[in-house]
Amino acid sequence: MSQSNLKDAIPAHLPEELIQTLAGNGGVRIERIVSRGHRSPEGFWYDQPEQEFVLLVAGAAELELEEPHERRQLGPGDYLTIAAHRRHRVSWTHPDQDTLWLTVFFAGDTAPASGRSGA
Amino acid sequence: MSQSNLKDAIPAHLPEELIQTLAGNGGVRIERIVSRGHRSPEGFWYDQPEQEFVLLVAGAAELELEEPHERRQLGPGDYLTIAAHRRHRVSWTHPDQDTLWLTVFFAGDTAPASGRSGA
Repeated sequence: MSQSNLKDAIPAHLPEELIQTLAGNGGVRIERIVSRGHRSPEGFWYDQPEQEFVLLVAGAAELELEEPHERRQLGPGDYLTIAAHRRHRVSWTHPDQDTLWLTVFFAGDTAPASGRSGA
Repeated sequence: MSQSNLKDAIPAHLPEELIQTLAGNGGVRIERIVSRGHRSPEGFWYDQPEQEFVLLVAGAAELELEEPHERRQLGPGDYLTIAAHRRHRVSWTHPDQDTLWLTVFFAGDTAPASGRSGA
């Protein structure tokens, strides 16, 4: 078992978004994403078969979503779940700060598993 | 789709840990946990059939794990994945701060799903 920090090992030079899988199995994928002014190309939309839970841990960003069209400004601690196949793009990230995302991709539209749990 | 913040709606009085499911499906459960000095009862160990990804978002805590025995001090941004059935307990959380956890419970020991993704 390794313990790491979301701010570990961020390159000084970041020509592209940094995307790393932290954990998961065949049906779920937990990623760290680091953005530094990166945004989706003009006219580009993500259209994914999975649901996506997004937590903005640090920095600032704007997401654009379709059907219905929305713009969402996100700051530290903000989270949302994007439904499968809801088109979305990253329209802005802070140019002078690292924006850290924690994302979880998972299948289907069924209800969450229940049960007592904890840290 | 709702957008919320991990610091939203934390009760002033918190006699027990606050545990809320934020998203998931039948095979994955994403939770927010708020601790305020809470710890596992003496001699109590979690022993779960799922893997658990744990991110400490704010505050401070100590986890105790078995086989092998370890104590892990966690601060903001620290994360780890606890294997299924690895016994663990929360041995300490900061008494004067809210400790915010983001946890993801998911099955199995198979490798993460691959594939290009992003925020």
